[in-house]
Amino acid sequence: MVRVAVDAMGGDNAPAEVVKGCLEALKNSPETQVLAVGKEELIREALKGQTWDEERFTIVNATQVIGTGDAPVASIREKKDSSIVVGLKLVREGKADAFVSAGSSGALLVGGQVIVGRIKGVERAPFAPILPTDSGKPTLLLDAGANVDARPDHLVQFAQMGSIYMERAIGVKSPRVAILNVGLEEEKGNALVKATFPLLRALNNINFIGSIEAREVTHGYADVCVCEGFTGNMVLKTLEGTASSVMKLLKKAILSNTRSKIGGAMLKPALKEALAEFDSSKFGGAPMLGLKGLVVKTHGNAKATEICNAVLQCRTFHEENISGLIAKELGLGN
Amino acid sequence: MVRVAVDAMGGDNAPAEVVKGCLEALKNSPETQVLAVGKEELIREALKGQTWDEERFTIVNATQVIGTGDAPVASIREKKDSSIVVGLKLVREGKADAFVSAGSSGALLVGGQVIVGRIKGVERAPFAPILPTDSGKPTLLLDAGANVDARPDHLVQFAQMGSIYMERAIGVKSPRVAILNVGLEEEKGNALVKATFPLLRALNNINFIGSIEAREVTHGYADVCVCEGFTGNMVLKTLEGTASSVMKLLKKAILSNTRSKIGGAMLKPALKEALAEFDSSKFGGAPMLGLKGLVVKTHGNAKATEICNAVLQCRTFHEENISGLIAKELGLGN
Repeated sequence: MVRVAVDAMGGDNAPAEVVKGCLEALKNSPETQVLAVGKEELIREALKGQTWDEERFTIVNATQVIGTGDAPVASIREKKDSSIVVGLKLVREGKADAFVSAGSSGALLVGGQVIVGRIKGVERAPFAPILPTDSGKPTLLLDAGANVDARPDHLVQFAQMGSIYMERAIGVKSPRVAILNVGLEEEKGNALVKATFPLLRALNNINFIGSIEAREVTHGYADVCVCEGFTGNMVLKTLEGTASSVMKLLKKAILSNTRSKIGGAMLKPALKEALAEFDSSKFGGAPMLGLKGLVVKTHGNAKATEICNAVLQCRTFHEENISGLIAKELGLGN
Repeated sequence: MVRVAVDAMGGDNAPAEVVKGCLEALKNSPETQVLAVGKEELIREALKGQTWDEERFTIVNATQVIGTGDAPVASIREKKDSSIVVGLKLVREGKADAFVSAGSSGALLVGGQVIVGRIKGVERAPFAPILPTDSGKPTLLLDAGANVDARPDHLVQFAQMGSIYMERAIGVKSPRVAILNVGLEEEKGNALVKATFPLLRALNNINFIGSIEAREVTHGYADVCVCEGFTGNMVLKTLEGTASSVMKLLKKAILSNTRSKIGGAMLKPALKEALAEFDSSKFGGAPMLGLKGLVVKTHGNAKATEICNAVLQCRTFHEENISGLIAKELGLGN
């Protein structure tokens, strides 16, 4: 049995879609328990008209909410009864195996490190979203923003943790690990990349394939893309912004006249199918790796399906004992 | 009269499209001279069947070519008779006002600094492409890859040079200058951004609007986006890769069945028009700013129109005396 605490107050569609996603996950996985954390009356409201296995769904009341505008460090310290702080504490105290939230990324990243804590020997806990590619194969980006200034030895740990995650949680055999760089030649790179490259090449527990240019990330040329958090945030956000800009222009084209509207309607089913490949929400949310328990961030606009996938992802993470493997490979007991 | 040296051997479509683009530019602008640099016999071959003003078109023979696979530093040093080295020397010697190339970015970036040289007082010469946005308004990204490790004072100069370029060359009044960052709050940023932010805020010769997240770049929330070259390369390449991935999936959707093919054909004219907004090649190529003469890089796959636009861009740059303005604002004679 895996016990997943879920932030019922996090994201744009809370609590209705979050609760719905939790109940879906319970239906799909009899080995999963959910602890819904948040304002009890609102959660009860969202549950109306639904049926579920009461033994596997518990409400944990939390009276406060951390908004996306709140300063991360201050809110983790001050909002002791917020759904994020209460949920993370459940993980720290061993009352839950994982915590899923669509709420404030900043508060989750800070709270994950401060409340749940890192595995002994893990220097930094990276944020590791799956990115979409046009081949339909997922690629992992880490660190996507938890640690904006990192050292070569941190990047080495990111590479190892990312490799374990892709192999065990996503099922990619011998994942191809690459470092994000401005070119493929060995002379290329900033000081951090140049210092990290030989360390990665010397590792014998990952399949290091060298550098990857940012242009190739969405073409799926690597299974794990390693970088520090500032670079990762740039890649993640540029990808999201560009995809949304192109989709906006596509919609504009479809709506521009009668002919294009008809054309758009005829194209729609095939387009939906093709673009589903470019949607990574089927893999659930983005984990923070290297913590003593699992913390997963879903998109702020996540709907029930993404929440459900994130809860199911926690089961795989737990069953594959990914934290245990990370501790074994990187931990001080090494 | 502006004298533009053009690398007739650079890019995927050289020399035919390059030569065609040059002749187009000569037709459009009677105040422009072109010096086509490259293998004379190949240039003459490409000229066959064309007509042009012979007084304003000169061939400068160069027997070598720097390939995109050649190591930049070594090739600049060793291939003395390559079109890139010969073209850059024409600028250095004052025989041309600008050099346009679709060839090796690396060789151009190195050669620009080493052969043409920086304006006295300019510490680093950034590579400054115009990025497409979904609003159709251009945004300038600098540095997009010339200087992968930069200091706060370099970024301050990038901001000033970018502002001058957008105002004078592109015609944006009081350009909104922002620094690329992982969030908008002042506590956000890596060490470089945190050190640079107050310096930018203290400048009185730019319209600094604070941080911009990478997600907003293609939405046109700033006219000038400032960063060091590693970050800029990540943003530029992720944008290009993502746009190409989405377009690939769109094409796949259109080709998937008869219904979608008809729909695609009906949508095509409107789509072409909408996506034209997301094409920055109408602004020509990407300049390196802060050099004693102008060096412009176009896409490797540039066709005649983009080459023509890049040549015309050199005329604006020259007439608006942008190097002179940069020297006045940043130079040692300040």
